[in-house]
Amino acid sequence: MTDVAIVGAPGYAGVELTRLLLGHPELRPTMLTSLSETGRSVGEVYPALASYTEAVYVEPDPEVIVASANVVFLAVPHTAAMGIAPSLIAEGLVVIDASADFRFKDPEVYEEWYGLTHTAPELLGEAVYGLPELNRDALLGQTRLVACPGCYPTASLLAAAPAVEAGMVSCDRVIVDAKSGISGAGRTPDAGSHFPAVNESIAPYKVTAHRHTPEIAQGLSLLAGKAVRALLTPHLVPMTRGLLATVYLELAKQASASEAIALYRERYSEEPFITVHEEGQMPATSEVRGSNRAHIGVAVDDDAGMLIVACAIDNLVKGTSGQAIQCANIVLGLDETAGLDHPVPVV
Amino acid sequence: MTDVAIVGAPGYAGVELTRLLLGHPELRPTMLTSLSETGRSVGEVYPALASYTEAVYVEPDPEVIVASANVVFLAVPHTAAMGIAPSLIAEGLVVIDASADFRFKDPEVYEEWYGLTHTAPELLGEAVYGLPELNRDALLGQTRLVACPGCYPTASLLAAAPAVEAGMVSCDRVIVDAKSGISGAGRTPDAGSHFPAVNESIAPYKVTAHRHTPEIAQGLSLLAGKAVRALLTPHLVPMTRGLLATVYLELAKQASASEAIALYRERYSEEPFITVHEEGQMPATSEVRGSNRAHIGVAVDDDAGMLIVACAIDNLVKGTSGQAIQCANIVLGLDETAGLDHPVPVV
Amino acid sequence: MTDVAIVGAPGYAGVELTRLLLGHPELRPTMLTSLSETGRSVGEVYPALASYTEAVYVEPDPEVIVASANVVFLAVPHTAAMGIAPSLIAEGLVVIDASADFRFKDPEVYEEWYGLTHTAPELLGEAVYGLPELNRDALLGQTRLVACPGCYPTASLLAAAPAVEAGMVSCDRVIVDAKSGISGAGRTPDAGSHFPAVNESIAPYKVTAHRHTPEIAQGLSLLAGKAVRALLTPHLVPMTRGLLATVYLELAKQASASEAIALYRERYSEEPFITVHEEGQMPATSEVRGSNRAHIGVAVDDDAGMLIVACAIDNLVKGTSGQAIQCANIVLGLDETAGLDHPVPVV
Amino acid sequence: MTDVAIVGAPGYAGVELTRLLLGHPELRPTMLTSLSETGRSVGEVYPALASYTEAVYVEPDPEVIVASANVVFLAVPHTAAMGIAPSLIAEGLVVIDASADFRFKDPEVYEEWYGLTHTAPELLGEAVYGLPELNRDALLGQTRLVACPGCYPTASLLAAAPAVEAGMVSCDRVIVDAKSGISGAGRTPDAGSHFPAVNESIAPYKVTAHRHTPEIAQGLSLLAGKAVRALLTPHLVPMTRGLLATVYLELAKQASASEAIALYRERYSEEPFITVHEEGQMPATSEVRGSNRAHIGVAVDDDAGMLIVACAIDNLVKGTSGQAIQCANIVLGLDETAGLDHPVPVV
Repeated sequence: MTDVAIVGAPGYAGVELTRLLLGHPELRPTMLTSLSETGRSVGEVYPALASYTEAVYVEPDPEVIVASANVVFLAVPHTAAMGIAPSLIAEGLVVIDASADFRFKDPEVYEEWYGLTHTAPELLGEAVYGLPELNRDALLGQTRLVACPGCYPTASLLAAAPAVEAGMVSCDRVIVDAKSGISGAGRTPDAGSHFPAVNESIAPYKVTAHRHTPEIAQGLSLLAGKAVRALLTPHLVPMTRGLLATVYLELAKQASASEAIALYRERYSEEPFITVHEEGQMPATSEVRGSNRAHIGVAVDDDAGMLIVACAIDNLVKGTSGQAIQCANIVLGLDETAGLDHPVPVV
Repeated sequence: MTDVAIVGAPGYAGVELTRLLLGHPELRPTMLTSLSETGRSVGEVYPALASYTEAVYVEPDPEVIVASANVVFLAVPHTAAMGIAPSLIAEGLVVIDASADFRFKDPEVYEEWYGLTHTAPELLGEAVYGLPELNRDALLGQTRLVACPGCYPTASLLAAAPAVEAGMVSCDRVIVDAKSGISGAGRTPDAGSHFPAVNESIAPYKVTAHRHTPEIAQGLSLLAGKAVRALLTPHLVPMTRGLLATVYLELAKQASASEAIALYRERYSEEPFITVHEEGQMPATSEVRGSNRAHIGVAVDDDAGMLIVACAIDNLVKGTSGQAIQCANIVLGLDETAGLDHPVPVV
Repeated sequence: MTDVAIVGAPGYAGVELTRLLLGHPELRPTMLTSLSETGRSVGEVYPALASYTEAVYVEPDPEVIVASANVVFLAVPHTAAMGIAPSLIAEGLVVIDASADFRFKDPEVYEEWYGLTHTAPELLGEAVYGLPELNRDALLGQTRLVACPGCYPTASLLAAAPAVEAGMVSCDRVIVDAKSGISGAGRTPDAGSHFPAVNESIAPYKVTAHRHTPEIAQGLSLLAGKAVRALLTPHLVPMTRGLLATVYLELAKQASASEAIALYRERYSEEPFITVHEEGQMPATSEVRGSNRAHIGVAVDDDAGMLIVACAIDNLVKGTSGQAIQCANIVLGLDETAGLDHPVPVV
Repeated sequence: MTDVAIVGAPGYAGVELTRLLLGHPELRPTMLTSLSETGRSVGEVYPALASYTEAVYVEPDPEVIVASANVVFLAVPHTAAMGIAPSLIAEGLVVIDASADFRFKDPEVYEEWYGLTHTAPELLGEAVYGLPELNRDALLGQTRLVACPGCYPTASLLAAAPAVEAGMVSCDRVIVDAKSGISGAGRTPDAGSHFPAVNESIAPYKVTAHRHTPEIAQGLSLLAGKAVRALLTPHLVPMTRGLLATVYLELAKQASASEAIALYRERYSEEPFITVHEEGQMPATSEVRGSNRAHIGVAVDDDAGMLIVACAIDNLVKGTSGQAIQCANIVLGLDETAGLDHPVPVV
């Protein structure tokens, strides 16, 4: 068993890490830190987990973390991650960061979209973007720092990658119309997650301004070998979990749905967490609720010359915490699916 | 007071017509027909309306309808509408049809998408497409037959029209990513509206194959004065009411969001049911729940050269029954907003 | 038209008053006050109402209120109401208070349950408890101050009253198992109304400790002519609106369901807002969503010797703002149903 | 590994059994039968399970079942279970029945409430009521047939048992006010599970007439050693999973909440799936979603002399399929928690 710490453990990313790690055969959460819930037990804060652990949230003291764990998951907001990561890495820990701090190769992009100065730009070079399906080889090396993707980029890149890599689409411009459950907004109550305000309603938000936009563009550009313009329109959906990215790509030349599906199935044939649906079948987010899987549906609109790909994930699992564990499994040389292969409820 | 009949009254379109007409100052529902609920009172079937009417559903006998009403709303499935409309029109009634039967100018388009032969093609020429904001003048004549738009076309065309008319967008290809509440599937229980199956989930459906696609294309082509390729991706959202169309249009030349908003506000300045939001504000379907209004938000993605317009409606009101009443008001020379201007709950 | 002010207008009780008054034929909201939204328009805060009013929230200055309105609705938290009511009453205004401050005849009960000293106990004697179905005569006099009931007491008392008044039940102990939508918690986001925390879950809260308990006991005791012990178990239900009280009463002697229903129908035969369902039919909160009505179902368990009565209301309408308007209509000599009789959506 | 068959596998009870058994270390689902989905794979019917099994639904042929499995779970409607169970038992299989057919010791009670003649009354004597917390010893013998409890009885009996056994409550009459998610109505779409009809609404149903009533009475009477009158009022809640029973019991003599909680904790101290909350803490169904646990909260209303106990379970797990597996584990001599101890998501 490898001891792991979770920094920022009572947030939704942190508690989902906790939940998944409590069922993991090789990783053991030995330290759960929190600024706001210090001294309370996991079970007090989340009665659903009371019977699985007696752990108590403690203050995030880097020295104690170093003494307690070999791997650290950072489930803290951006800026907090780049504050603590350097010292942990310096002490030899593997850091799996769920925040945005180390996702961009170019600190200027980060600084433009996040509106602040990066304080650890020297780590950007070695940080590995933790989307295993596109970047597994990079994770296999002497990785010390994994920058886990955002939830929208995860679904968007998984949806677009096979077509972009294969040159099936021109990808001058990629449109992502994305829909997320409300847990994506986190655990802190505010107007955007107030039940009567968001229930029974769907709405776009942060149109042209969501910070996951440049991350999608960076990922697509790497795949295409040229600059890709990405357009992301996120929507808030009245459900707790689930994220669906509907991606619109211009076909470079005519292709049928079955050809496109064959391409996707070939590309993902070895992937343990990806399912490509049959022609005519589209994914529902309920199919992947609680799961680390991504389900993908592919269609072609001949008239419009467009490839339409929908990718459904659970924003808290494949979109955040499950993927972080998948990355840790790879980095640590464990079975990539360890702790992530439990069958999930169908309703 | 003008006496009106509703054919197919217990379905969701029919009962929403009933509800709205019970609050209408000039129209009075005097006959409610049904095949399945004959003999039951409205209040038995819908206890919410028990205190507003003692009406009983009767069989849809055309002779009795003609004797009882001057205006008929058809809230029946396609094919049923074209079966009954000719005889009612021949007897001098005004027919407001909520089905798809008379929406297409070209019967071949109808026959291709609906998979059957049109039995009353002679009426297609005089049927007026009932989207008042785009087609009010046509409704003002000696209209005998109004073909009310589908819910997706209503939101999509309202979202696209100002930009298309003004040539602000090139519109070779218009992408509509649309999201609908589950009442759009109607009153009959099936797997697609079974609570545990659709709750807590979002999914695309009928991708590239939804029958509202050619209707959107027809509407856009008329506006553009050329053939427009429309791409519609509908999604099912876990809420009862509400429809959001997020429309992606390629800018013909650079334009700012404020310029686009100014154009939209000018275009809709006299419209009683349209609100164009400020820059940075996007519509939520909750804003129009129970209302005949359409709320529109406009954004520009400079990088991608795209205009993004979101239009929120209530699928059962502006998307179906409210719009049918709005059309009837116009045809009958009443105040266009009669019966449709009651303030709605904000949550 | 009578000019009315709403104090605390942007809260859920206040905005529901605003919505209903905008459709009221005799009352006109001329002043909307707020501490938190001063200077913003109603439409900015609630886009759903943007097209119905251009009103702007202003500071709650008693002098300006007195100069602007003849009737004042207080939609503020308890303590705030007893702070402002005396001066408004002294100036001759009619005050309709939606808070708890004037509901109790005995200030000690208030002080025990609300944990503070009553600052205007001299008004408790003349305050009229605003549940018209039980207390209409008292409202008809020279009423200056109406204390509107809480949402749970409204449903509970309407459910129990006919049986208690008639002596059909012994009522030593009345059990109310109540279920409320989340809008009952108000407009301010907190953990108890955070979408992911309350969605897909039902839970009791404040068991044996909810402040509406003594209000139910007071009401039942008045009806019974003796002290009644009331037991209230409120539950939070994952829906925005709606409140259902399931009330368990011990039959004083054997009675059939049809006898009980006959009693209820007789008792409420003249009531404009009450429906008593047929034997075997129970009310759903969806039947009264957006409506001022109360729907009641009555059953008898012979074996257990119990009368079971379920009463469904909309917590924001009959449970709060609609009832406040109903009371104002009575006090002002208007049609009791004015502004409250618009047909509501069935789904 | 022990081979097990599931009869009626694509229903909600069946698929939840499938899901749980796919994660079970000792039981292996080798045969999944269905009348309606014969020939389709599990993954076709439920894409969420596609990656976990390639099993295909087959016709329910008893001979093939006997040849394929040692244990059979019956997830079929009542009457179907008593049709097939005798032959399976005769062939030496262990039968775990999730239906109502073998729950009653007295066939007359069954016949009265279910309205038909029992065709295998000879098995009622040996059928063991499968509520391990109350009846574990009986399961440990040479059990051939387990009659798993209904979902409402499971929560109700767990809530009442400690107090009833200890004589803390008089229990002449036990009131159960119960609330269930909509998956309890099963997989077949009908009006009672149609999204727009049940969403945003709570309602009682089958008041005084629910078939779980005599089952609760039977269980309580056994515990009390005398005939107990049980009153069950079930409600439908707009959520997919979860069941909460709020149980009202008359205290035999004064007791404090802390005394009652101490009694409950003592009674359930060795139970692997029961949590008794602290004073002031009540269970939410979200705490046990996807889990086989039952969370219990206990309160005392001194004034009314009542003990109020709320028990939250997942209706499809502890209320049906999880409990069936728990029973099978006991009967087969496996670890009672095998396959049922995976940590569940907190939101």
